[in-house]
Amino acid sequence: MNYQKISNNLKFLSVDMINKANSGHPGVCMGLSDILSVLSTHLNISKDYPEHLNRDRLIFSGGHASALLYSFLHLSGFDISLDELKNFRQLGSKTPGHPEITTQGVEIATGPLGQGIANAVGYAMAIKFINSQLNQALSSKVYCLCGDGDLQEGISYEALSLAQSQKLNNLILIYDCNKISIEGKTNITFNEDIKARFSSIDFMVIEINGHDYEQINQALLSAKNANKAVLILANTNIANGALELQGSEKSHGAPLGEELSIRAKQNAAYPVEEFYIDLEVKEELAKMSARANEIFTNFKVENNDFYKALNGEIKYDLSKIDLNKMDATRNTNEIILNELANSIPTFLGGSADLAPSNKTNLKAFASFNENGKNIHFGIREHAMAAIINAFARCNLLAFCATFLVFSDYLKPALRLSALMKLKNFYIFSHDSIGVGEDGPTHQPIEQLSTLRNIPNLLTFRPACMAENIAAWQIALKHQSPSAFVLSRSNTNYAINYIPDISNGVYFAYEIKDYTHLIISNGSEVKLAIDVAKILNEKGIKTSVLSMPCFNLFDKASCEFKNKILKDKKVIAIEAAASNELYKYASKCFLMQSFGESAKEKDVFKHFGFEADKIANEIIKA
Amino acid sequence: MNYQKISNNLKFLSVDMINKANSGHPGVCMGLSDILSVLSTHLNISKDYPEHLNRDRLIFSGGHASALLYSFLHLSGFDISLDELKNFRQLGSKTPGHPEITTQGVEIATGPLGQGIANAVGYAMAIKFINSQLNQALSSKVYCLCGDGDLQEGISYEALSLAQSQKLNNLILIYDCNKISIEGKTNITFNEDIKARFSSIDFMVIEINGHDYEQINQALLSAKNANKAVLILANTNIANGALELQGSEKSHGAPLGEELSIRAKQNAAYPVEEFYIDLEVKEELAKMSARANEIFTNFKVENNDFYKALNGEIKYDLSKIDLNKMDATRNTNEIILNELANSIPTFLGGSADLAPSNKTNLKAFASFNENGKNIHFGIREHAMAAIINAFARCNLLAFCATFLVFSDYLKPALRLSALMKLKNFYIFSHDSIGVGEDGPTHQPIEQLSTLRNIPNLLTFRPACMAENIAAWQIALKHQSPSAFVLSRSNTNYAINYIPDISNGVYFAYEIKDYTHLIISNGSEVKLAIDVAKILNEKGIKTSVLSMPCFNLFDKASCEFKNKILKDKKVIAIEAAASNELYKYASKCFLMQSFGESAKEKDVFKHFGFEADKIANEIIKA
Repeated sequence: MNYQKISNNLKFLSVDMINKANSGHPGVCMGLSDILSVLSTHLNISKDYPEHLNRDRLIFSGGHASALLYSFLHLSGFDISLDELKNFRQLGSKTPGHPEITTQGVEIATGPLGQGIANAVGYAMAIKFINSQLNQALSSKVYCLCGDGDLQEGISYEALSLAQSQKLNNLILIYDCNKISIEGKTNITFNEDIKARFSSIDFMVIEINGHDYEQINQALLSAKNANKAVLILANTNIANGALELQGSEKSHGAPLGEELSIRAKQNAAYPVEEFYIDLEVKEELAKMSARANEIFTNFKVENNDFYKALNGEIKYDLSKIDLNKMDATRNTNEIILNELANSIPTFLGGSADLAPSNKTNLKAFASFNENGKNIHFGIREHAMAAIINAFARCNLLAFCATFLVFSDYLKPALRLSALMKLKNFYIFSHDSIGVGEDGPTHQPIEQLSTLRNIPNLLTFRPACMAENIAAWQIALKHQSPSAFVLSRSNTNYAINYIPDISNGVYFAYEIKDYTHLIISNGSEVKLAIDVAKILNEKGIKTSVLSMPCFNLFDKASCEFKNKILKDKKVIAIEAAASNELYKYASKCFLMQSFGESAKEKDVFKHFGFEADKIANEIIKA
Repeated sequence: MNYQKISNNLKFLSVDMINKANSGHPGVCMGLSDILSVLSTHLNISKDYPEHLNRDRLIFSGGHASALLYSFLHLSGFDISLDELKNFRQLGSKTPGHPEITTQGVEIATGPLGQGIANAVGYAMAIKFINSQLNQALSSKVYCLCGDGDLQEGISYEALSLAQSQKLNNLILIYDCNKISIEGKTNITFNEDIKARFSSIDFMVIEINGHDYEQINQALLSAKNANKAVLILANTNIANGALELQGSEKSHGAPLGEELSIRAKQNAAYPVEEFYIDLEVKEELAKMSARANEIFTNFKVENNDFYKALNGEIKYDLSKIDLNKMDATRNTNEIILNELANSIPTFLGGSADLAPSNKTNLKAFASFNENGKNIHFGIREHAMAAIINAFARCNLLAFCATFLVFSDYLKPALRLSALMKLKNFYIFSHDSIGVGEDGPTHQPIEQLSTLRNIPNLLTFRPACMAENIAAWQIALKHQSPSAFVLSRSNTNYAINYIPDISNGVYFAYEIKDYTHLIISNGSEVKLAIDVAKILNEKGIKTSVLSMPCFNLFDKASCEFKNKILKDKKVIAIEAAASNELYKYASKCFLMQSFGESAKEKDVFKHFGFEADKIANEIIKA
């Protein structure tokens, strides 16, 4: 195998792509091409079965190395043409600035630093779980290429600390240690003893020269046979081979330019022709798919219920759940979660150390550490969300949970769930100032709006068991993530049928020929009905619309919306800073400040969420 | 010193408070009372000078230990009466569920786990900086009590890794290692070799029995004299002394209850009387203030410009800046930042490894590591924001910076800036789909709304130098944080006067007797004016309102708003998912999806941000 030839073709294709786009990150592409050329002889992925269950997972945590990844996929015969390489970072291309999963061979979207490491831990955990449920173990390894930036982000520590407890002998992290970041040498701010750091979480650490093919190869051989997770600490040069730019932070985010590129190619005894393709390299890389195909075609699994579920055949029945009991929606949700976990083999999840509060314990199942479905994520919200992103990419149906206010801690990973349209479920309990005594640090105010404004995400705030079931029925069919925003306390509201909320709404209280309409949701629906009753007594014909999902209502037809809203005085009530309600309502009773530490009822009263008070304000207006 | 007496009084006052409130966290209070009782003999804080510059800083990173903190402050003579202890977690009390800085003696608001550790690093850095600027060094030490939860959060690793580069010999972390979290024993998910972890970042580690007074005392003596940051690894029992609940996760978040409390007190040979105060303990703790007072009264500093600035006397002059050049607002902001840093001795900051992109380099100054003003935070957004929270609590005027899309990574700490009303400055460049080629992972969509919905925060999105200056003039006077959302590219807009934006808005283009009004801001103001020009040509009288700060407009008088908006057709344009614009406008041109990787102009065009297209839609409507 002529690693040098592969490496050069990967490297200079990337350089040409970035030059042509006049945008991109050559430093990392040139620094990693040697490692990738050797890795290609170990990696079991195939252009013929790009999504095979038993494939290895290749993750570029530094998504800014996208040009290298696309070059590699192109030369390996994946569905990325040379024209697509030439169209790097242009509108509608398969080669966007950071990798997206709509491109064949891209395992997961990366770019925001640190995410890929947590994804890698998630893949390794998912594969371990799948192994425990199938009659034949997957041989998949998870290879994650990462850099200084990834290892500085908090999410990486969280995920790697969790990895320790999972004993992931299928996880191989390759650290591109080039000691350069955007502001200069990393030692201005990053001086960790990396070996000690990874030893503290029981990784095997192998240090190599990341430009020495033999050392790279030996490291990968050792890593594949290790009985624990491995870090390959590869000392590299950023922009290796870029002459005077080698080793400089200036190579990070700007094209080399034509002149330097030509000199660099000449120095490497490489053809200066732009977008040169070495057919010998294509032949060499074709061996990767051939090798993988042999493994994949020999891979037989029993078509058991788990395997069927993994392929989308799922059954569940929420119709026997008692709808009539008024309860906190975290409790109604607990019943649903358990029913789904009991019915769907691939349904699992856990909390960031709040399972008893989030009500997410799956009672019939053991801990994930013992091949059960209850994942103890620890107090690591951010890694938790990135981990279930990888679970979704393995066709598992995973939920994760924390308090709504701490959705802030995991937001960057949730955003990527939405960007990739992954079918994940976010359980956020303790959904408002109703949290009470724990006070403003624990009372969400702006978080609901944040969730609702994320494209592709459905945010549900149900008011009762029936709405909660309706929400899950939609979420399970929706090819994108959903968030369930749930109350800590009894909502004092229930209906005895499962409402149609395909347009996000239904009438919780309907008066014929109403002139006034109150929109509300979750724990405020009962309050809205109380307000409406007072208004109706005073002769103001008022209905109440429960709107558990704003995103679905936004997508409803104009006819549907007009029928409900047109020529009505529309009022909204929600104990949050939900300014998006002004889209539908002219008068909104919302939170304008942070909350207060006090008994729940005192907090609601303090902030004016009282039926009499609201009714009077509506009458006065 | 009778540590046992102090400890018992702290412990059982906390237990009584939690019982009376029927809400709170006894486990941590009972686990830490021994350590706190010994710490009181080292700590230099005083009820007489609660905010003295040379005080030690005491941080409970686990803010759920609030009952212990309040008990300690009460017994030490701070302004928290016994009635306030009895009013724990009730509306309007000085004793909310988690500590808030409106209570005397509370150093910083904590509760969301991990924050306190990063705050502690921030305090230690701030003190080091202040020392370098005064003629007399502060003797302040930073003591941070933290638990398993804090050490699992990503932010803690980020902050501690940064601490390594800062050589903080004034930082003493005390780890309450009780091996219990909410879901049970921590070893289900957390098995780090803590000594190795902290050795990897060059901390001195001292392991002790956290209930052995002599060991605690010796550890604190060693820590105070260490030439590097110290971790005291204190092995403790959660709910120490709570009989059958000692060592159980059940003691974490629920009151002990009367019966068990009485038995626990009896077992400790402690009076069973509720809210019992031991006068001997008060006498002992009074010595703490007396000792600190001696230090504080002997503390003399030259009243130099830095000291004056620290006490609020600041001068700056932005009037000489050239307003006429059209530019990217990240560039206009760079000029302002440098002017402020040059004029105000306490003004400093840095970026999460994006200084060249965020344009935050302070050209006249060295790196913070060399006592300069340019902080290299590393790729650690979350710790960065928590660190400047501590800076603000030391009266420094600090900014931090990253791309707007990565404001998600630091949101939990930004929220606490706002909750505490700290005068911090957040610089967020690369503010929209205008990011271009880096694509949807790097293009903010929902982040602007998130910021605008945070109470107490002013979010500015200026369109030019003049607006940018106006924004800073307000921000520097506003006792709360501000965010500056800045463009990567030229906004193609400038005005030659500094507008009055005290109400958040001004007319960027004004037509007499307008019937239509377009609200816009930032890089879309030029577009809005182009649209207005087309409409005016067609006879539709249209003005353009630049709204760089929604939060200020929200607070404007009804008269002011009506004068501008009433009976007008109001349209809004913003390249973000800013649904809050429906508060003012009936038709909004916003982003409805994630962005695309392409050249900036192609992205804007793709999503319909073109003058002709928008004008036509307005005409058709």
